[in-house]
Amino acid sequence: MSGPVLGWTAERLARFSLAHVVEPGDPGMWRTVATLGVEGAWSALRSLGSDSRWKHRAAVFDPETAIRLTERSGARFVIPGDPEWPEQLEALATCEPVQERMGVPVGLWVRGAARLADVARASVAVVGSRAATTYGEHVALDLAHALVRAEIPIISGAAYGIDAAAHRGALAVRDAAGDAVTAAVLACGVDQVYPSGHAALFEAIAARGVLVSELPPGEHPTRLRFLSRNRLIAALSRGTIIVEAAFRSGARNTVTWASACGRPVMAVPGPVTSGLSVTPNRLIRDHEAELVSSLEDIQALLSPVGQDTLVGHQEPATTVDLLGETELIVLEAMPGRGTTGLDELSVRAALPVPRCLAELESLGAKGLVREREAGNWQLTHRHLDRRR
Amino acid sequence: MSGPVLGWTAERLARFSLAHVVEPGDPGMWRTVATLGVEGAWSALRSLGSDSRWKHRAAVFDPETAIRLTERSGARFVIPGDPEWPEQLEALATCEPVQERMGVPVGLWVRGAARLADVARASVAVVGSRAATTYGEHVALDLAHALVRAEIPIISGAAYGIDAAAHRGALAVRDAAGDAVTAAVLACGVDQVYPSGHAALFEAIAARGVLVSELPPGEHPTRLRFLSRNRLIAALSRGTIIVEAAFRSGARNTVTWASACGRPVMAVPGPVTSGLSVTPNRLIRDHEAELVSSLEDIQALLSPVGQDTLVGHQEPATTVDLLGETELIVLEAMPGRGTTGLDELSVRAALPVPRCLAELESLGAKGLVREREAGNWQLTHRHLDRRR
Repeated sequence: MSGPVLGWTAERLARFSLAHVVEPGDPGMWRTVATLGVEGAWSALRSLGSDSRWKHRAAVFDPETAIRLTERSGARFVIPGDPEWPEQLEALATCEPVQERMGVPVGLWVRGAARLADVARASVAVVGSRAATTYGEHVALDLAHALVRAEIPIISGAAYGIDAAAHRGALAVRDAAGDAVTAAVLACGVDQVYPSGHAALFEAIAARGVLVSELPPGEHPTRLRFLSRNRLIAALSRGTIIVEAAFRSGARNTVTWASACGRPVMAVPGPVTSGLSVTPNRLIRDHEAELVSSLEDIQALLSPVGQDTLVGHQEPATTVDLLGETELIVLEAMPGRGTTGLDELSVRAALPVPRCLAELESLGAKGLVREREAGNWQLTHRHLDRRR
Repeated sequence: MSGPVLGWTAERLARFSLAHVVEPGDPGMWRTVATLGVEGAWSALRSLGSDSRWKHRAAVFDPETAIRLTERSGARFVIPGDPEWPEQLEALATCEPVQERMGVPVGLWVRGAARLADVARASVAVVGSRAATTYGEHVALDLAHALVRAEIPIISGAAYGIDAAAHRGALAVRDAAGDAVTAAVLACGVDQVYPSGHAALFEAIAARGVLVSELPPGEHPTRLRFLSRNRLIAALSRGTIIVEAAFRSGARNTVTWASACGRPVMAVPGPVTSGLSVTPNRLIRDHEAELVSSLEDIQALLSPVGQDTLVGHQEPATTVDLLGETELIVLEAMPGRGTTGLDELSVRAALPVPRCLAELESLGAKGLVREREAGNWQLTHRHLDRRR
């Protein structure tokens, strides 16, 4: 293959080709792309001397047929730099790999009326079990509905149970501004319907949101593709909420990705008598997730849009960036919720009480903390751009 | 009144008299007792110049009639220094008052086959709503049963709902060693049955545990007496578990007392759709309680018996007491559960990474922390005598 096809740039074509030939999240290929760039990686893969496991796929890849298939599927192939590209995926470039899978996708297929970047920018992921209970589905639907009403779109998978309930809750908001209420991230091509019982749901999502995949049209889901897909759900959203999940669960994997990307992990507790409460309750117990039960709980944990989620991204200097070191130590020592007294804070910050008090007053003047009642201090909402 | 009655010491008689005349938890009287001692406080109350609100009650108090009433009720009057006295109540001498109520009881009426000190020593309090759901009662019964099987007796109130379920769970353990399975702490005399539907439950508790009250036989419950009673439930036990409680709840008050006494507060989460989950879920959300759903969760949070609960009590020097200051800073910065990496720990402890690592290795050699996997450290169980 050489030169532009149908007016595509060489970069777009290299990404499109790599996305066809290499499995999502392949760690070796991500390292090659990081070193050689996408065009270099694609050339290397096609070279006679390549020892890549993907070289045979590369040799038989026919871009023109593939482009026709993408066009027929109604999908668009979106790459970094396109207006629709969700920049927060860059977090995957620097975060810890989870179960070997890693890396920013070289491109995404998107199908639907909304623009992916618009859906994802302020979004929250809602994930959980396929075999959810009525309780779990009720809560997922309710929370997703409340989130979308508050202009926070939903990101989820496309499975039965919690995923479907979350999308239905989002789609039930009739007066939402624009078509950016929900995104289903698939482990198959965006023209495939998996599970097949979700045909009508997929069309409803495409009409008022987007279907997204790292896999080309026509592709079917595999176990590894689900694991790779989970990192996209976590990285696209500002935070992940797990609603119901048994001890072993794909949702647990998504939460690990969210954590790796520095995004808040939230969990809805459930009855301790239910096997589907095990993972959310355990995440809360082990302080790996914050307990949430309402829109307000979720909003309190989310960073302001655009300031929060880009690991390795150059943020504009905030009040917090300009703090002195001791101010920062005191700010970091403040509890995420609730109030703290000076004595406790002094222990946590490992600073003498008078020093803590001086820094608290300075932080107070900057609007970052306030004295709730005599001697009891708490963070204000402005602190949130520091806390992930 | 003067001199010994029926061979009682002057101290016992003063305590017995004060316990009849002064309402439990009265802050003024506690301060007088702390200053003058019980005999001094009783004399002052009886003096002509007394301006105490209790002086009229004191003037008409007849100790011989009262002693006969106590004898007829089948109760014994227990005071500090008696073998049956639960020393952990001394935490109430130094802890913060809650809603003005305060102080160590001057004495307790105890009725039942067990010795109060035996029931209370290793106990855990289980509290919650009167209007509990089947879920809450099921969990309270189950946890209490598992606790008693693990030789951890139960402390609770005597209300319908969670209290009763906890006692029933304790009493259902048929092969428990000895009669020390459960204690009901009452806001009325131990000869009273309140609520009256609990007559059979009270007799079952008396047969294999104890009924306990700060109030003399014959006395009826009042709102303030419930509030005073709550501090006893919290102070008698090694920790308090709240199972179900609505937004406004007496159980919330008990939890505040537990916290004031430096005892672990634990909460069983529940469905976010239930009003009775509001208080436990909120306590967990605000990090005021640890989420528990099993015996193992509870045991992991309890300090070893006898090392944990006495605020202001002189403990023998432990490994932790002998740590250097920087070791202690690093130990305090470790998360209560789960693991932490060096970078995170370095921020929390406000110490450079190499220093953290050196202290971790030293703490590891003392058995207080361990490296779970490469670079990830966690507390061992030996740390628990520092963490309340």
